[in-house]
Amino acid sequence: MRKFNFSAGPCTLPVEVLHEAEQEFVDYHGAGMSLMEMSHRSAAYDEVHRGAMDRAKSVFEVPDDFEVLFLGGGATLQFAMVPLNLLTPDTRGGYVDSGAWGKKAIADGSHHGEVYVAWSGAGDGYVRMPRPEDVRLEPDTRYLHVTSNETIHGIRFPEFPDLGVPLVGDMSSDYMSRAIPWELFDVVYGGAQKNLGPAGVDITFVRRSVLEHTNRELASYLRYDVHASSASLHNTPPVFAIYMVGKVLTWMEQRGGLGAFEAESAKKAAMLYEAIDGSDGFYRSPVDPAYRSHMNIVFRLPDEALEKQFLAAAAARDMVNLKGHRSVGGVRASIYNAMPLAGVEALVELMGEFRADA
Amino acid sequence: MRKFNFSAGPCTLPVEVLHEAEQEFVDYHGAGMSLMEMSHRSAAYDEVHRGAMDRAKSVFEVPDDFEVLFLGGGATLQFAMVPLNLLTPDTRGGYVDSGAWGKKAIADGSHHGEVYVAWSGAGDGYVRMPRPEDVRLEPDTRYLHVTSNETIHGIRFPEFPDLGVPLVGDMSSDYMSRAIPWELFDVVYGGAQKNLGPAGVDITFVRRSVLEHTNRELASYLRYDVHASSASLHNTPPVFAIYMVGKVLTWMEQRGGLGAFEAESAKKAAMLYEAIDGSDGFYRSPVDPAYRSHMNIVFRLPDEALEKQFLAAAAARDMVNLKGHRSVGGVRASIYNAMPLAGVEALVELMGEFRADA
Repeated sequence: MRKFNFSAGPCTLPVEVLHEAEQEFVDYHGAGMSLMEMSHRSAAYDEVHRGAMDRAKSVFEVPDDFEVLFLGGGATLQFAMVPLNLLTPDTRGGYVDSGAWGKKAIADGSHHGEVYVAWSGAGDGYVRMPRPEDVRLEPDTRYLHVTSNETIHGIRFPEFPDLGVPLVGDMSSDYMSRAIPWELFDVVYGGAQKNLGPAGVDITFVRRSVLEHTNRELASYLRYDVHASSASLHNTPPVFAIYMVGKVLTWMEQRGGLGAFEAESAKKAAMLYEAIDGSDGFYRSPVDPAYRSHMNIVFRLPDEALEKQFLAAAAARDMVNLKGHRSVGGVRASIYNAMPLAGVEALVELMGEFRADA
Repeated sequence: MRKFNFSAGPCTLPVEVLHEAEQEFVDYHGAGMSLMEMSHRSAAYDEVHRGAMDRAKSVFEVPDDFEVLFLGGGATLQFAMVPLNLLTPDTRGGYVDSGAWGKKAIADGSHHGEVYVAWSGAGDGYVRMPRPEDVRLEPDTRYLHVTSNETIHGIRFPEFPDLGVPLVGDMSSDYMSRAIPWELFDVVYGGAQKNLGPAGVDITFVRRSVLEHTNRELASYLRYDVHASSASLHNTPPVFAIYMVGKVLTWMEQRGGLGAFEAESAKKAAMLYEAIDGSDGFYRSPVDPAYRSHMNIVFRLPDEALEKQFLAAAAARDMVNLKGHRSVGGVRASIYNAMPLAGVEALVELMGEFRADA
């Protein structure tokens, strides 16, 4: 019996993709071996690899002047690679501190270039993103780093700020769930393990004109230009994770692509926010409505005892992993691309019944 | 029909492990979801993660004063992390240039500390490793970096040099196929994708006393101490690759552990070297006999046309991926832990018959 899995990541994947991969698992297309046992330079893997790359660009509607990289180390390694590749002694990186992930990007980046906080939401508890006029840019800013969606606090940028400085976006938790204004970005990165596949691969898009000026005084793995010029085959890539990402992207294509998922996410999120807002204060969202995430819907109940009961009632109906992050408590429903509408409907139904019974 | 897959990596895995993982693939132990869909902080994944760590240490007979890390980026990222973590402005890293992989470690390391070549096999075409007395150490050498087995050239260290300087070993291509003298090493690392599982995870062992003095002025992902103190859960690890490594290690345990595999590798390699040496010069090994690899057996035939015919004859008997690396040509039989004895027997049989017919 398959559960509705509201985990914040790793998280639910399309069950159709799991079944397909299961079929091919031991013997890949009659090759007499699994895909995992093939050289990353083999024709069969090359097709998988290039296919996933092409689809990452087509599904996410990426302009031709961007390269896509498949890397290990997750988005966390990108916290190092972004300043290592982009900053020079004369430039600095501005960062939006919008919560747990923004803070990590700043702390990590500070070891590899001059970085500063261009805006922080710490003062009001990370309940919103900055308005464009809130962001304070310093001279010689090479990029402004933004976290498009903060998984823990349940906030997102409804629109990205156009301040005349290129954006670098960590999109781990709303990757390919929304169209983005590519003209504003130099780099977009994120781990695959929420919307796009299993853990084990980061997907980074870098503007080609930027690659001409990235830092070469680095070990090869840390260099964007090395990965770009080798089509992410400089060393053995995380083959299986890339294969699964390719399958998830095909699944997205078959279901209408980015636009369809963006609309579906908006619809799923609206159902939950309506259940919260229409509860006469029984359920409360701490987030400024204009900045509410479409991926991670966080809410509170009147007290912690009720929250505990709610989580138990959900589990009894096969809805699991709804507990809020340990740093903030409460309830968090993560409704990534692969969460079926039926899962959200079941949760809304429970919210109504639980409140009536409380 | 399963083939005998002599690929140099990624490469053959134990078919028993593939079947087991296939069974658990869509629904992990009745959880209502796959392992890939679970949080890396879940109890079920924690058991997998800790189990793989414990087994990596027990199977490889690792002393208690080493930590094991599971990292992304492959051994290639370690080419950066080793000097980043270990070198200071007052110390330098010595490197043995024993072929393609040693050279990459040096080139990458040179960007992150002072490194030098302590011995090079380039002059005689990488047909052997250095004797201890060949290695020229400079003052203030923090470590001597060695590649235990050079996949492309088919050479290995039969014994590791004890020169009073700690060793750092890249063991990607003979990982856990042999016991090593741990007292000589500060760091041992390698990608899993040859002896230990699918691509996507590097396994690094670091001596605990070394961790007290590693560089802290780095982004978190680049710090050995951060991964050690978080049990490699600082960020989302490559879950599926680690799960598979755990299964391969269990498979090794069930078959007698490291000693059994070391003996089996010696036996399989000896069968092939005997077939080469007993062929009256039809097959030729370019490698100094004292340094011949037990993992990658490289050999030549009288001419390239015969080599091409040999590879075709092998493929006709379902023995594949025997072509030597593009940089050296010839034939290469990679016989990692999961290559069954029957595969080696079939290859030896072909070698005899092909020679008789030629």
